[in-house]
Amino acid sequence: MKWIGENLDELREKRPVVQNITNFVVMNSTANALLAIGASPVMAHAPEELEDMLRIANALVINIGTLDDRWTRSMEMAINIAKEMNKPVILDPVGAGATEYRTKTALRLLEIGNVNVLRGNFSEIKSLVGEGNTKGVDAAYYDKEIAQEIAVTAAQRFDTTVALTGPVDYVTDGKREYSIENGTPLLAKVTGTGCMVTSIIGSFLTVDEPLRAAVSGLVTFEIAAEMAEKESPYPGTFHMKIYDWLYRIDKRIIEKNAKVREIER
Amino acid sequence: MKWIGENLDELREKRPVVQNITNFVVMNSTANALLAIGASPVMAHAPEELEDMLRIANALVINIGTLDDRWTRSMEMAINIAKEMNKPVILDPVGAGATEYRTKTALRLLEIGNVNVLRGNFSEIKSLVGEGNTKGVDAAYYDKEIAQEIAVTAAQRFDTTVALTGPVDYVTDGKREYSIENGTPLLAKVTGTGCMVTSIIGSFLTVDEPLRAAVSGLVTFEIAAEMAEKESPYPGTFHMKIYDWLYRIDKRIIEKNAKVREIER
Amino acid sequence: MKWIGENLDELREKRPVVQNITNFVVMNSTANALLAIGASPVMAHAPEELEDMLRIANALVINIGTLDDRWTRSMEMAINIAKEMNKPVILDPVGAGATEYRTKTALRLLEIGNVNVLRGNFSEIKSLVGEGNTKGVDAAYYDKEIAQEIAVTAAQRFDTTVALTGPVDYVTDGKREYSIENGTPLLAKVTGTGCMVTSIIGSFLTVDEPLRAAVSGLVTFEIAAEMAEKESPYPGTFHMKIYDWLYRIDKRIIEKNAKVREIER
Repeated sequence: MKWIGENLDELREKRPVVQNITNFVVMNSTANALLAIGASPVMAHAPEELEDMLRIANALVINIGTLDDRWTRSMEMAINIAKEMNKPVILDPVGAGATEYRTKTALRLLEIGNVNVLRGNFSEIKSLVGEGNTKGVDAAYYDKEIAQEIAVTAAQRFDTTVALTGPVDYVTDGKREYSIENGTPLLAKVTGTGCMVTSIIGSFLTVDEPLRAAVSGLVTFEIAAEMAEKESPYPGTFHMKIYDWLYRIDKRIIEKNAKVREIER
Repeated sequence: MKWIGENLDELREKRPVVQNITNFVVMNSTANALLAIGASPVMAHAPEELEDMLRIANALVINIGTLDDRWTRSMEMAINIAKEMNKPVILDPVGAGATEYRTKTALRLLEIGNVNVLRGNFSEIKSLVGEGNTKGVDAAYYDKEIAQEIAVTAAQRFDTTVALTGPVDYVTDGKREYSIENGTPLLAKVTGTGCMVTSIIGSFLTVDEPLRAAVSGLVTFEIAAEMAEKESPYPGTFHMKIYDWLYRIDKRIIEKNAKVREIER
Repeated sequence: MKWIGENLDELREKRPVVQNITNFVVMNSTANALLAIGASPVMAHAPEELEDMLRIANALVINIGTLDDRWTRSMEMAINIAKEMNKPVILDPVGAGATEYRTKTALRLLEIGNVNVLRGNFSEIKSLVGEGNTKGVDAAYYDKEIAQEIAVTAAQRFDTTVALTGPVDYVTDGKREYSIENGTPLLAKVTGTGCMVTSIIGSFLTVDEPLRAAVSGLVTFEIAAEMAEKESPYPGTFHMKIYDWLYRIDKRIIEKNAKVREIER
C-alpha cells in the first residue's frame, strides 16, 4: 500500500492547518504530534472566532474528552461551520459509554451529518451503536470477534468512516474494510495516544479520502510508536520518542513495517 | 513496612478507576502518573456526568490548582456524590494561603466531611489551620519543627488524614503518625509533582485505609523520583523518567529504599 | 553584553513569582520552563483571586492562545490590577491576525497601557499594526526586511517594547534596538516554545528594564534550545532537553554563544 507513504509525503509538503477542539488533558500532546508529523495545529474554541479559524483550517478535529456545556456548544458550531465550508471533520467520542452525557453528546455531533471519520476504541464505538459500558476512557476491553462487526454497523448507521482501534484496528466506510495490526500495548500507558492518532488522521484527511486517510494516520502513528518502543520500553521516555518518530518516520519505514490488510467480504 | 509494596501489587492487580477534577497545568502529568503506576485515570468536570463517572470510579481526586466558580461547583458536587456513594476522596488545596479565595474554597470542600486525605505542602496546610501566606504554589518554605504539629492539628480539626509534604513528609490521622524522608529537591523543579503524588495517593485509597494509602503513595512516588534522578539530574529528562520509574518500581525497590518511620508519641 | 548573564544570576537569586494567564496548550510547558530557569510560576484566572495573586507576584504574563470571553475578562482585569500595583506585564498575542477576535482582543489589552513587552512572531505583530493574515499560530512566514520595521512601528504605536521573534529576532522600544540570531528551526516543531520564551522574558522583567529583559529572556532561552538540539535533533526529546538546559545554562554558556547586536540607526 504505497499510498500511505505517499500521503505522508503529500501531508508534509502541504503542511495543513488542523483546527482542534479537544480536551484539556491532551492539548499539548496533540499539538506536538501534529507538529512532529508536519502539520500546523491551531486550537480555538471561542464561538467568536470559529468561523475565522475554520476559514484558515484544512481540517477539523473534535474530541469530547473533557466536555461541558460551553465546549459542546462550540463543537456543534464548529462542525456546522465545517459542513458549510466543506472541510473534513474527525470526531473522537472519548468516554462514550462511560457516561450518558458523553454518549448523547457524541450522537448529537454525529447527527449533524458532517463527520468524515469517527475514531474510537471498542467500548466507545460499541456504546454509540447500542448497549455498552466503558471502564474508564482508556478501556482495555476488546473483543476481536465483534469489533469488526461493530465498526461496520457504526459506519453504516452514521454514514461515516469508522476507525475502531484496539489490538487489531478496523477501518471501514461500511463497504470497504481494512485491518491494521501495528502498534504496541505500551500506547495504553501514555495518556492521549488515542487522541493523538485522531488528530494525526485529521491531518491526513487533507490529502486523501476518509477511508485511506484513517488507514494512513493509524499506520503512521502506530509504526512511530513501535520505533519509539524499540528505543525505550518505559512510558515516560517512550512518550517523548513517539514525537521523535512522528518526525523521523518516512515512506521506507512505513513500507517495511506496515501490517495492513484489505479485508474481502 | 511490607504493606507498601503489597499495596502496590494490589493496586496493579485491581487497576482502579480514579476520577480527577484537577487543574489545567497538571492534567496530562497526572493522567500519565496514574497510568504508569497501574491505575486508570478519568477526567470529567461537567455536572451532567459526575454521577455516572463516579459510579464507575473507585476514588476521587480534587485539586484546586486553577479553580474558578464553575469548577469549584463541580468539585463540591463531586465530593457530595462520592460521600453518598461511599467512595474515597483526596483533596489537594493547591495555593491555599496564597489567596483568600483558595483558602476559603479548600475549607468549604473540607466541610463537606468526606475528604479522606488532605495532601498539601507546609504553607498550604498551615493556612488551613490558621495564619499563613504562601509564596507561590510551590512554596519552598518549610519548618520541620512545626510541620509535624500542623499536620496533627489539621488532621484533628478536619477529621481526616493529612499528608504534609516537604523535606520530611508527615502523615497522620491525628492519632497515628508517620514520617517519610524519601524524595529529592529536584521534584520542586518540575511542575505538578505535588499534584501527581496526590493522584497517586488517590489510587492507593482503593486498596488500603487513608493513613497507609497516603504513606504508600508518598513512598512509592518519592522513590520513583529518586530512581529517576539517578538517571538524570536535570528537570526535563528527570520528569519523563519519573513516569518510567512509576512503571518500573516494585516491591523490592520499595523495601530497599523506603525511609519511613512510625512516630511514637 | 555581560548584563544578560548577570540578569540570569539575579533572577535565580530572586526567584520571582510569575503569575500567568495563559493558554491550555502550554500551561504545563510554561510552568516547567519558569521552574527550570529559576522562577516560581503561579497560574490563576479567577476574578476572585487575581488581586491577591498579583500582590504576591513580581510579574504578569498574559497569553491569548486559547482565549474566550471569560478568560479575556480575567486578562483585562489582571492587567488593570498590575497597572495599579505597578507590576511589569508581558503580552503574547498568540494567533493575532488569524482571527479578528484575537487581533481585537490583543489590541484591547494593549490599550490598557500597561504592557511592558509585546512578544510575538512576524504575522502576529504585523496584524497588530495593520494588515496581515496568519497561517496558523506557529506561522512560518517571515520577511527579514520588514520585520525590523514592523517591530519599531509597533513599539512606537503601543508605547511598549516589542520582541518580534523569527529567524532573526528584533527587540526594540522604538528608539534603541537589538537583533538576536540565536535559536534553531527545531523550536517550531515543539508547541508553545514561543509561549515559553514569553514567560521567560516575564521572569526577566523582575530584574531589568523591558528592553534588556526581553533581550535577556530571548538569548537565554534560544541558547538553551541550541544546547538541547546538540543532544537531540528530534522534537520529543529535544523538548525535554530544553528544560534541562534552562536549568543548566549559565553566564559562561551565554557569553560564549550569544549572537546579539545592538543596532545603530
